[in-house]
Amino acid sequence: MATRLRQIKLGMFLRPAGHHLAAWRHENSQADAGVSFERFVEVAQIAERGLFDMLFSADSATANSVFDEAGLRRMSYVAWIEPFTLLAGLASVTRNIGLVCTASTTYEEPFSLARKFASLDHISHGRAGWNLVTSGNHTAAQNFSRNEHMAKDKRYLRAKEFSDVVLGLWDSWEEDAFIRNRDSGIFFDPRKLHTLNHVGEHFRVMGPLNVARSPQGRPVLVQAGASDDGKQLAAETAEVVFTAAPTIEEGRAFYSDVKERMVAFGRDPDSLKVMPGFFVTTGETSAEAHEKREALQALIHPEVGLALLSQRMGINLSGYDVDGPVPDIHPDNVISSRVTLLSDMARRENMTIRQLYTHIAGGRGHYDVCGTPKDIADVMEEWFITGAADGFNVMPPVFPDSLSDFVNLVVPELQKRGLFRTAYEGKTLRENLGLQRPQNRYVL
Amino acid sequence: MATRLRQIKLGMFLRPAGHHLAAWRHENSQADAGVSFERFVEVAQIAERGLFDMLFSADSATANSVFDEAGLRRMSYVAWIEPFTLLAGLASVTRNIGLVCTASTTYEEPFSLARKFASLDHISHGRAGWNLVTSGNHTAAQNFSRNEHMAKDKRYLRAKEFSDVVLGLWDSWEEDAFIRNRDSGIFFDPRKLHTLNHVGEHFRVMGPLNVARSPQGRPVLVQAGASDDGKQLAAETAEVVFTAAPTIEEGRAFYSDVKERMVAFGRDPDSLKVMPGFFVTTGETSAEAHEKREALQALIHPEVGLALLSQRMGINLSGYDVDGPVPDIHPDNVISSRVTLLSDMARRENMTIRQLYTHIAGGRGHYDVCGTPKDIADVMEEWFITGAADGFNVMPPVFPDSLSDFVNLVVPELQKRGLFRTAYEGKTLRENLGLQRPQNRYVL
Repeated sequence: MATRLRQIKLGMFLRPAGHHLAAWRHENSQADAGVSFERFVEVAQIAERGLFDMLFSADSATANSVFDEAGLRRMSYVAWIEPFTLLAGLASVTRNIGLVCTASTTYEEPFSLARKFASLDHISHGRAGWNLVTSGNHTAAQNFSRNEHMAKDKRYLRAKEFSDVVLGLWDSWEEDAFIRNRDSGIFFDPRKLHTLNHVGEHFRVMGPLNVARSPQGRPVLVQAGASDDGKQLAAETAEVVFTAAPTIEEGRAFYSDVKERMVAFGRDPDSLKVMPGFFVTTGETSAEAHEKREALQALIHPEVGLALLSQRMGINLSGYDVDGPVPDIHPDNVISSRVTLLSDMARRENMTIRQLYTHIAGGRGHYDVCGTPKDIADVMEEWFITGAADGFNVMPPVFPDSLSDFVNLVVPELQKRGLFRTAYEGKTLRENLGLQRPQNRYVL
Repeated sequence: MATRLRQIKLGMFLRPAGHHLAAWRHENSQADAGVSFERFVEVAQIAERGLFDMLFSADSATANSVFDEAGLRRMSYVAWIEPFTLLAGLASVTRNIGLVCTASTTYEEPFSLARKFASLDHISHGRAGWNLVTSGNHTAAQNFSRNEHMAKDKRYLRAKEFSDVVLGLWDSWEEDAFIRNRDSGIFFDPRKLHTLNHVGEHFRVMGPLNVARSPQGRPVLVQAGASDDGKQLAAETAEVVFTAAPTIEEGRAFYSDVKERMVAFGRDPDSLKVMPGFFVTTGETSAEAHEKREALQALIHPEVGLALLSQRMGINLSGYDVDGPVPDIHPDNVISSRVTLLSDMARRENMTIRQLYTHIAGGRGHYDVCGTPKDIADVMEEWFITGAADGFNVMPPVFPDSLSDFVNLVVPELQKRGLFRTAYEGKTLRENLGLQRPQNRYVL
């Protein structure tokens, strides 16, 4: 492969209606996206026109993962098409864009997972990626006959063994194992078939996988964990990391942390792309961009705002006056350092509950940026060239408008600066991301 | 719905390259179908042109389910695209044909299964069906960290509870639960959300499902078990039964048995369609049809024939002279009544091993029919009007040619007789099969 300039990679984070909490209430939103495949086709095709590297979908094996009952009935995320099925359906109506789906090592079986992602890679001709998660949400356990959600350290031990098994199964067949010689009647060469025979603490999986080696060698491995365990697993195994960095400083810290950890595993830091979530609102002018943003903020129902803030701060705020002050949190109830930051900000700036939930409603912990295409490109360029990001997982506030805005306005600005492709470089997700095609472990 | 004439229903049984053991060796076969999505698109579109009710895929969570090592390397079924992913991909390149996928109650989780099939129903606008199996193949256990494959009676107890949970989850949301009122900010009506709270012997599943009620109310329930347990579960829950009946008499016996069992469950016998597999070879003339068939038979490699016969008879025949006599089987080694039948026939007709494996190679236990379109239609009509079948699961020997033959020659003959549709009756699989749309259990 010829050397080429390092350029920004772009993911497009799917979500019904949009990433803004009130997206579905917007007059032009896809409020029915949860039951309409065509809405996702529209979004996928706009993203492909914008030369995005990949579509990305999160997942949750529960209907009520985040919000309390009052807020839930006002949310569009409670029920929608299961993302793997969705992405498999999108494979045949897209041509170049990657298809990255989240799947949990806590609630799936490695054999089935290896099979389905290899199959997605086949039907998309090399565009599949697996976002490995361990499922942070404890309510999923109740849908899977488990007494309780597995503790984090145990989840990560299982996740490591799980991904070892999956990677092993993906090497079951060598590239050229299938001869299909009609004359001799030999379909495959048994010397190029490898049976895994994995026996570990969590899994016993014989193999081989009943799917041929996939077009990318194997699907792209993605991760999103931000904890110490998560970063360690990413440094060892991931090729893309999606992360949430609310400031460029935090972005740089995460970036250098993960890249440094890779060295210990003997990996080239460039073989992993760090892509923070970017919640982007843009318009022809700064005023227009801010108007779009304010219009959405005004649509957040107080019940949703309270539910979000309650969940984020770990206390129940339902019944509080949204135009009253943010209550102090007893130190015993502080569930994370993020809560202290929020609480301190509210006190310092004398914020009401409404002001605080509006403040966090947009990016939901991701970097939240609003402005002209030039403003947005400036920010992306700074993150990119100062070591905070190799690319971004773009989170459009409302589908399809915010995505169209990004494609029509920001993409040309990035291209003008030489920061983004003007055509897909390759046919597979790996080729577009500039990742190497992995060797089969059994091939010398 | 207006009364309409009872007509034959048709399933199209997908399989890489074809249903004949040697299909892939045929000069015009899709030998690379295991890694080529486009081959399946071609097949699906021919079947849709032929107005088939549905595509059907079997499944096996193991690469080496049937054949021994010697035969295996000559088989095209060892590795191919995982069928659920395949059918989800086919949803967006087909418009009318049903998409029925096999999934195992022994190796899946009911919550995940309910989610993905409801999602397939959404992306296909009401064309999904689930073929419930308990997995007869013991080697799958070794890919799923199980010490041993569950015994049959236990598998069926689990299957019954599994399907209860899945049906319950599919009723999580009432039809009109999603209001999406932008003005009031209410997305769904909580009174129309139902949490399952299932606690049983095998599963504890809280719910609700995080997918809206699907276009068909729920996917069509299909089964294929022929054992007593299988027939009982089918009579209680199934809407379609795929079966293997090597003779019309066996077909009638199965048909009346299942339909009679339904009465005990208070079900209308017409709410379940019995569809035996039909291995069909046709041509403009009888000679042409038989030539096509013989050409395939001649392509069966002796190793494959021996492996098939060994597996079917439960003894290892490798090393035997294929042109020598079929050995007697010690009564202690007879694994089923089918073995005695085969053994008796071989002795009676003085068959060689090659003759015997060639005899069973075609339909592999399914009804095997070869002749002109009129011959085929005569047989189908007889099965249909004498109570052996409501329809057929067509098993083309070689893709795409045998399927094209069926669509071009047999379908018009059936239509001429008024036995088959001339256009799809409805938009959903249920409508085409003439099945009722199920009520949500929570709606009075």
